[in-house]
Amino acid sequence: MTRILVIGAAGMIGRKLSERLAKEAASEVILHDVVAAKPPAGLKARVVVADLSAPGAAAKLVAGRPEVIFHLAAIVSGEAEADFEKGYRINLDGTRLLFEAIRKTGDGYRPRLVFTSSIAVFGAPFPEAIDDEYLNAPLTSYGTQKAIGELLLSDYSRRGFLDGIGIRLPTICVRPGKPNLAASGFFSGIIREPLAGEEAVLPVPRSVRHWFASPRAATGFLMHAMRIDTAKLGARRNLTMPGISATVGEQIEALRRVAGDEVAQRIREAPDATIQRIVAGWPQNFAPQRALALGFRADASFEEIIRIHIEDELGQRTLRPRPDRA
Amino acid sequence: MTRILVIGAAGMIGRKLSERLAKEAASEVILHDVVAAKPPAGLKARVVVADLSAPGAAAKLVAGRPEVIFHLAAIVSGEAEADFEKGYRINLDGTRLLFEAIRKTGDGYRPRLVFTSSIAVFGAPFPEAIDDEYLNAPLTSYGTQKAIGELLLSDYSRRGFLDGIGIRLPTICVRPGKPNLAASGFFSGIIREPLAGEEAVLPVPRSVRHWFASPRAATGFLMHAMRIDTAKLGARRNLTMPGISATVGEQIEALRRVAGDEVAQRIREAPDATIQRIVAGWPQNFAPQRALALGFRADASFEEIIRIHIEDELGQRTLRPRPDRA
Repeated sequence: MTRILVIGAAGMIGRKLSERLAKEAASEVILHDVVAAKPPAGLKARVVVADLSAPGAAAKLVAGRPEVIFHLAAIVSGEAEADFEKGYRINLDGTRLLFEAIRKTGDGYRPRLVFTSSIAVFGAPFPEAIDDEYLNAPLTSYGTQKAIGELLLSDYSRRGFLDGIGIRLPTICVRPGKPNLAASGFFSGIIREPLAGEEAVLPVPRSVRHWFASPRAATGFLMHAMRIDTAKLGARRNLTMPGISATVGEQIEALRRVAGDEVAQRIREAPDATIQRIVAGWPQNFAPQRALALGFRADASFEEIIRIHIEDELGQRTLRPRPDRA
Repeated sequence: MTRILVIGAAGMIGRKLSERLAKEAASEVILHDVVAAKPPAGLKARVVVADLSAPGAAAKLVAGRPEVIFHLAAIVSGEAEADFEKGYRINLDGTRLLFEAIRKTGDGYRPRLVFTSSIAVFGAPFPEAIDDEYLNAPLTSYGTQKAIGELLLSDYSRRGFLDGIGIRLPTICVRPGKPNLAASGFFSGIIREPLAGEEAVLPVPRSVRHWFASPRAATGFLMHAMRIDTAKLGARRNLTMPGISATVGEQIEALRRVAGDEVAQRIREAPDATIQRIVAGWPQNFAPQRALALGFRADASFEEIIRIHIEDELGQRTLRPRPDRA
């Protein structure tokens, strides 16, 4: 029997992870967020609504000594940039309060802690592919807060207070739901909207390259991180996850192959200098050798990313059978 | 007229910097530390005794809106490892409280902030020479706290709250004064004690390589950091300083050349497995191209490091004239 705590369970990844836990593993789960998370069918879960940065909140969450903690809660990039104090309060103080609550539990308590970090810990200029020894030099407050969380995770793990593993997620694509205002939103929008019969706007040239994982791959990373032998990590507890490096042009060609010309023609080019400038500072490609050697597996192709969206969100069989995973 | 605040002014680097400020620049100086700093001859300074991590302390220090702030205060490596909470309170919270006090001053206040970081932000395994894009993966709580300070410095600078520059000091050699219990103490001890007519103990093999700067070079870095055009730094505000990479054997040969056989023979080998294990995790060599391009200058040789100790601490002319600086 494994007691599992999911912090930030009401977000997109939190919901997907909860579904996966319902299917695969969990017997005793706490789903935490600032709003009430909705447990998926088949998962017996206690739902806790709390602000992680409030005094005593973290201690209450870990009072039952969960053996596994997924720490997914975060103020996202755009909001952390717009609201400096809120970003630091949740992303830095919240994370540190959680780690401190675990440390102060003491008495041999040393949970597996899976922390979602981000490729936002990297900032331009970049080499052609970012390897596992490349500097963390974020260009956003969100990326700074994640990089600090990573450093704390490694130090608390090294001191034996917790058994941490940090997972640097690629940009999630195709993100389900409505378009949002994130500068990265178009990467999902140009797939999601055309598949739903709607027009999508493309603000950047087709040559722009970025790094992607499907929601299914992302939850796969988290499940693997829960089970992995962390002795293999050594002192460096944070891992860049494998992903698919694709240009916008390659995204669109994949969409055409999966769903046809008519769908792919629903993308309208509308260059936006502001978004182009922001995106120019983002990483494009990685060489995530450590994560690959540790058994983390990306999607097979950008086409597979599209098929996963069709299967998981649109409830349809894809046009072609999915290739077996490597 | 420049108003200068030195935080951590009673430490070795703080004292050397105060002497330099007395000679070169300063008209209005505040010397802060947890104990009363002693202003050097010729420096008109206000001395403030306060715990930087105490509520309101940082706000009081910056109330006079100093144009330059040197933040040198830190719990050192050994103590931060032995006392987890104290290390985080001073090295992380103290630094953050200082940055927050500056941010909250507002009204266009944006001081030059020179932050002393350390090569402890790096942890093994290393490449042959650590370049400016190498990962910060510290193996101590002190190194973790310094790496977090660096990230905050960059983010607060990027947001325009301060004008920061982080200086990763090499191991300071020859450190004046009594031997201390730091694992790195022997690097200075094997020079300082023989020159003082005393025996020194060498706990590691002569093949051990490390990265050094004299106290004079270190204060030179800080003075240069005070004056540099930070627009040249871009978003990456933290710089590995140049140093001298030398093996213990090369240190001893330099001592022999500067001070003779008799002095160099006062070193007794006494292997210590614990110290050898700690030192094995330390960096040995760097390629600090950015700092060199920005005009930071290391000592010319390990011999020069020894001559500086003889001149500055023992009050003697060195046996041979110092070569001109490169």
